[in-house]
Amino acid sequence: MFENYKALTEKDAVEYARSLPDLFAGDAELANREIGDGNLNLVFHIVDQKSGKSVILKQALPYARVVGESWPLTLDRSRIEAEALKQAAKLVPELVPAVYFYDDQLALTAMEDLSDHIILRKGLIAGKVYPRLAEDLAKYLAHTLFFTSEYYLDAQEKKENVRRFINPEMCKITEDLVFTDPYYNAETNSFNPLIRETVESIWRNHQLKREIARLKESFMTRTQALLHGDLHTGSIMVKEDSTKVIDPEFAYYGPIGFDVGAVIANLFLSFVSHEAHTQDKKRREEYQHWLLDTVEQIWNGFEREFRALWKEHVKDEMWSVPGFLDDVLFQALQDTSGFAGCKMMRRVIGLAPVADLESIEDPAVRAEAEIKALQIGEQLVLKCKSIQTVSDLTNLAREILGKGLTVK
Amino acid sequence: MFENYKALTEKDAVEYARSLPDLFAGDAELANREIGDGNLNLVFHIVDQKSGKSVILKQALPYARVVGESWPLTLDRSRIEAEALKQAAKLVPELVPAVYFYDDQLALTAMEDLSDHIILRKGLIAGKVYPRLAEDLAKYLAHTLFFTSEYYLDAQEKKENVRRFINPEMCKITEDLVFTDPYYNAETNSFNPLIRETVESIWRNHQLKREIARLKESFMTRTQALLHGDLHTGSIMVKEDSTKVIDPEFAYYGPIGFDVGAVIANLFLSFVSHEAHTQDKKRREEYQHWLLDTVEQIWNGFEREFRALWKEHVKDEMWSVPGFLDDVLFQALQDTSGFAGCKMMRRVIGLAPVADLESIEDPAVRAEAEIKALQIGEQLVLKCKSIQTVSDLTNLAREILGKGLTVK
Repeated sequence: MFENYKALTEKDAVEYARSLPDLFAGDAELANREIGDGNLNLVFHIVDQKSGKSVILKQALPYARVVGESWPLTLDRSRIEAEALKQAAKLVPELVPAVYFYDDQLALTAMEDLSDHIILRKGLIAGKVYPRLAEDLAKYLAHTLFFTSEYYLDAQEKKENVRRFINPEMCKITEDLVFTDPYYNAETNSFNPLIRETVESIWRNHQLKREIARLKESFMTRTQALLHGDLHTGSIMVKEDSTKVIDPEFAYYGPIGFDVGAVIANLFLSFVSHEAHTQDKKRREEYQHWLLDTVEQIWNGFEREFRALWKEHVKDEMWSVPGFLDDVLFQALQDTSGFAGCKMMRRVIGLAPVADLESIEDPAVRAEAEIKALQIGEQLVLKCKSIQTVSDLTNLAREILGKGLTVK
Repeated sequence: MFENYKALTEKDAVEYARSLPDLFAGDAELANREIGDGNLNLVFHIVDQKSGKSVILKQALPYARVVGESWPLTLDRSRIEAEALKQAAKLVPELVPAVYFYDDQLALTAMEDLSDHIILRKGLIAGKVYPRLAEDLAKYLAHTLFFTSEYYLDAQEKKENVRRFINPEMCKITEDLVFTDPYYNAETNSFNPLIRETVESIWRNHQLKREIARLKESFMTRTQALLHGDLHTGSIMVKEDSTKVIDPEFAYYGPIGFDVGAVIANLFLSFVSHEAHTQDKKRREEYQHWLLDTVEQIWNGFEREFRALWKEHVKDEMWSVPGFLDDVLFQALQDTSGFAGCKMMRRVIGLAPVADLESIEDPAVRAEAEIKALQIGEQLVLKCKSIQTVSDLTNLAREILGKGLTVK
């Protein structure tokens, strides 16, 4: 694979799109726009001006660029992304972009154009409500996680899947940036100088770090289900009546709670950011209420669907023992809490900040929101083993926000 | 691999041995004896009558035969066994047979002849004491488990190892015969009719089975270290001053406690069997005392070595958080208890009985020992989450044996 790799120019991309079977007519007038951020991938948006038909060509670059730094990165992630998308398309076709073609020489996927959708994170920053979001994400999580787990799959087939989705380089990024660097004075970190005191208290908190070490190990060693692996609100596209999960290049076999936790962490980040984004108190509280309600509905919907799938499909004599499903879901909820906590902290202290917080212009106002995010993250980790229901998570977020701490 | 496979005859094996480089002289007079049980492998013991030099040729058969039944079984297990032996030879060369050559067409390994050793299980049945055993096994466990884990290895190298040692067919045997079939009325089971009542009480014990389901999942999903995977006392060869671990064809990445638990389960099986084997009370109690002492020394030696290796080699910022190593060892001890419990019960109820118990001729006397084994196994599983030290394990075994129950 990839022996004949070369990064496409915009002109190459148009020719490539024209050559795809059954897509464009011979006389198509193709316009092309490169819409990727250029840090990891080229993303060409190609539209036939005559018919309106369109396609996305996403090509992996053999490196990653983040904040001026650049390091080599495997093209194999494009294979993993394409295979994970195809796998999800079998299970929840309405919730992922259709893959038309994967080119294993160019590390390139031709897929459905979703330009009538927007990135969920942008919608959340703008204070938009998405009535289908919770139900769609609950279904996405339940179906993609259940049907790729050993609860459903034949044990041998599942192990072959584990092998196929071993994804060391992408996992390493998460191991470093989510589970290691934010918790000590690492060079990759980048945070608002006004929150240094809070950050240093995290670096000194051994009990917290011991729990994070356990979560890191869990991320690295538990092959429970095929995860998306990077399910933040920038990997979800939405419009009023549609939800699409994109970009599973971090896909690998890991613990169920990591995907659920990623979604919830990012909704909590939005929750704290609206203290600054939305001035009108009533509107703000309504929106924050909707965000926490969405968190609860995602978990509850996920649990409901997962239980239904289990009841319908689980045959194994041991998985069928009364109470075992409860244990699996209980563990997943506690993992969700711990992973969500790590995901929140890394977005404040570490290398990859989120627009929800970054877009708060006044550093002092931003610091208040960031400290809230850190406090919620810290508690989600420290209390993960005593979490009993999803309301424990939302109550924790609500209470910490209510304390109204100011920057020292 | 294996395209030109054919099972060797005794004559083929001699020719093959003669062709191995640097082993036998041109005029060697090779005598050959097939010493395998023929159920899974051919094992040729080839000796040069002139020089006394010898070699073992172990060839995997493409099927397994157990109690009259036969099913196809991957030859790939011979590659895994050879690779696991070579890996162990780098870490603890004095504790495994040397591998001279692996033939990936014939699924055949040429290795060191250990016929001056005997199978540990036979020695234990005969009531022999092995002064080096605990220390050697502690070292074997600590070194093979630590150096193949992500505590020591670079995360990417460890993931490549996980891939290399994915071993679905052999794991399936364990999943079925250790973690599933013994706990319901499965066709594969085979037990003394006199213990049916105790067996049925296990089948009805939902709390027990729920815990076993969790242990089964842990066996199937946690890639903590490269395990031997079948470390019972039939996979260990001994003489007074030497211990050798053989037959790692079940090797795969799994939880540390599974290997430790396998050793301990089999020492506990020996412990209960000596109620019948050794009539002299003083000699029996001394031997049983040695067995439990060995269990404690194996764990304590393992923990001591593992801590020393950790201190010397662990660099990762998160693994180095104070307390995390304690958490890892505590989890490993509780897993050891649970896995040991399953391993004991399956040897009484399931398909593969152990000679320790099978060699007790009187069915009523055997039933008493079997019931003790089941009771210890059951408690090791039920109490695994409250185990604090290895003495909790040995005390539990001692107390149950002391109760002196008789067959109803």
